[in-house]
Amino acid sequence: MAIYSATVTSPVNIAVIKYWGKRNPSLILPTNSSLSVTLSQDHLSTRTTIACSADFESDRLWLNGVEEDISASKRLVNSIGTARALRASEEAKNPELAPLSQYKIHVCSENNFPTAAGLASSASGYAALVSALGQLFELPQSTAELSRVARVGSGSACRSMFGGFVAWRMGEKEDGEDSMAEQVAERAHWPDLQALILVVSDKKKAVSSTAGMQTTVETSALFAERVRSVVPARMQAMEKAIKERDFAEFAKITMQDSNQFHAVCLDTYPPIAYMNDTSHAVTRIIHAYNAVKGYTAAAYTFDAGPNAVIYAPKSEMRDLVQLFSYLFPRDEDVLPEVFYTNPFGLVGAEEVGQTVSDPAVRKLAETVGKFQAGAVRRLIHTEVGDGPRVLDQAESLLSQSGMPKRARQ
Amino acid sequence: MAIYSATVTSPVNIAVIKYWGKRNPSLILPTNSSLSVTLSQDHLSTRTTIACSADFESDRLWLNGVEEDISASKRLVNSIGTARALRASEEAKNPELAPLSQYKIHVCSENNFPTAAGLASSASGYAALVSALGQLFELPQSTAELSRVARVGSGSACRSMFGGFVAWRMGEKEDGEDSMAEQVAERAHWPDLQALILVVSDKKKAVSSTAGMQTTVETSALFAERVRSVVPARMQAMEKAIKERDFAEFAKITMQDSNQFHAVCLDTYPPIAYMNDTSHAVTRIIHAYNAVKGYTAAAYTFDAGPNAVIYAPKSEMRDLVQLFSYLFPRDEDVLPEVFYTNPFGLVGAEEVGQTVSDPAVRKLAETVGKFQAGAVRRLIHTEVGDGPRVLDQAESLLSQSGMPKRARQ
Repeated sequence: MAIYSATVTSPVNIAVIKYWGKRNPSLILPTNSSLSVTLSQDHLSTRTTIACSADFESDRLWLNGVEEDISASKRLVNSIGTARALRASEEAKNPELAPLSQYKIHVCSENNFPTAAGLASSASGYAALVSALGQLFELPQSTAELSRVARVGSGSACRSMFGGFVAWRMGEKEDGEDSMAEQVAERAHWPDLQALILVVSDKKKAVSSTAGMQTTVETSALFAERVRSVVPARMQAMEKAIKERDFAEFAKITMQDSNQFHAVCLDTYPPIAYMNDTSHAVTRIIHAYNAVKGYTAAAYTFDAGPNAVIYAPKSEMRDLVQLFSYLFPRDEDVLPEVFYTNPFGLVGAEEVGQTVSDPAVRKLAETVGKFQAGAVRRLIHTEVGDGPRVLDQAESLLSQSGMPKRARQ
Repeated sequence: MAIYSATVTSPVNIAVIKYWGKRNPSLILPTNSSLSVTLSQDHLSTRTTIACSADFESDRLWLNGVEEDISASKRLVNSIGTARALRASEEAKNPELAPLSQYKIHVCSENNFPTAAGLASSASGYAALVSALGQLFELPQSTAELSRVARVGSGSACRSMFGGFVAWRMGEKEDGEDSMAEQVAERAHWPDLQALILVVSDKKKAVSSTAGMQTTVETSALFAERVRSVVPARMQAMEKAIKERDFAEFAKITMQDSNQFHAVCLDTYPPIAYMNDTSHAVTRIIHAYNAVKGYTAAAYTFDAGPNAVIYAPKSEMRDLVQLFSYLFPRDEDVLPEVFYTNPFGLVGAEEVGQTVSDPAVRKLAETVGKFQAGAVRRLIHTEVGDGPRVLDQAESLLSQSGMPKRARQ
């Protein structure tokens, strides 16, 4: 059986200028440009293998070991269809190419982070899907061009097609041809920037971002002002801050834009509240931390959920891990779950949750006081990362017969 | 000893179009007009007695039985000074008037609701102060004119000078002469409207509204849009809804404006979060309650704190008290505190926290599920009320020697 296959991994990205609102929901064209930081695939990534063969009987999909109905997701069908059309166009130009565009495909995808963590996995997932399709079909399109295909799957996925600092230009054209990702700066431009994700416990079911953002577009009286005048100015200022590695400016815009995103969510009718009491406590702690340090030492940002992502220079990370692990004690009932993995060796194992070395930070920790155990479920420490990586056949998630090597019931 | 005195009570008001932001902080001139409902003094009020005498040696002040430094509050000094100037002008016109403007005064003031409840007592307090001064000095000014004096004490106090439905017109003049309260409709216009206040527990110290609103004016990128275009349209629509007793429209604007007020607080830098998880849960419950009923049956609004005020027609109140007392169990450790007083006899004592009579509301209650005991500390059930009341000498808080009848250490 002749099988063609490609395996890639793809990163998570966390926006510092938020995407919220579509001007065209079916093409996923946004109301405003956005900008994100790509996080390291060493800690958070999606791995996807796609195989195709004349012998496959139907398109099939396995997510984290469980087979799903591939035709159930219109967005998935669209993304795959677009990639097949690009391949078909190459096949039409070159009759020597195998007719892969007509073969059925098997898609197998896994996250290396718990889906339960509530980290937006769709961006990473669709970037992996499109990167793997691009590899499999040997598409000649540039990464920026392929980011349009990822965008049709999940808007912010287009930003996970690049490493480093990535803008999603909203574009002007009605067909979305100019709505795609662009790298603003490489990972190596600012290697000092790290991220600490606080996975926050939440009881209530969040409003899906797809539904939520369109309700905001339709009902928020303040949203148009954000789109018209606030975001364009912030995009310019943020690109400048990144180019100059000006952390104070980067941090201020990041925090302000996160706040404003959640503000327009509250101004939506009915209102949407993604941040909870723990999230708001984290914002107050970061502002207090910056006041204690006497300079802008850290920034928070929140996506469509209660988890906090803290951006800070590497030099602040020991203090931040000590502070947050002290303030948010680990819930002893969740023993099997790793609380903090210490990937950079910046914090001694005995310090986590126990020690706050810096006297001023210790005083802050004692003033704020410990929260209820389990309010933060884990700390994920990572850094700026690269774009999708192509892996060897040995790393494939599918066997030589095109079936998952590992499968769960 | 010749003593002149006057005693009044004054109501609380809860805005449905929010006041947030001053264009002139010293004169307390707002950035936008606002509109409130005056609540019944039978349940929430401030009582104030002011006496003056040639024999008093200094201005003195007792709040809830404790003597305070009357000169410590610039706003208090301003309000009293303004009232004295108005009296002095009358004395100049009529030499037969006793020279009360030159006498020292004793002010004694008490709330009939716990200050710890976090209900804004300053509006009620300054309205009582100015009403009592107007009585004592026999000022010829209209209530609207006196509302300017209350405004200088505490902005929203001007709205507590009237009963029923009250607009605070922002005015245009630099000296604030046209920034005053106006009754939009009397209490008797819409007697069916009731209110249920959920006193919500909160651990964190709230940002003071005086400080918070100016930070919003200075830092929120969305605030100007609210002031320029949203509030003027809502003021018009709200006055129409009140005049037509259109509860669905009244409710929608009330909820939207509360949400937007908290949205601009979040868009402030650093952000201000007055609502907590319990508050946000109440908003979701009200939207779900309206969905279950199939019509707009209740509206929420939140001031600069976590407490919810629910406005609803009298016919909904039994269901709402049953629902909220079921969902938010009383904390048994707070036994001395009254949880629900049932002032209108709409709910059987055995129903509170136990029964949800309506099957659809019961299903909603069971779906949402009970919250942790004590998340809501008490339910205060009240209705639309009248403006400040002048009381007899027998109701005075000061004795014939001008000292408090009751005093605490």
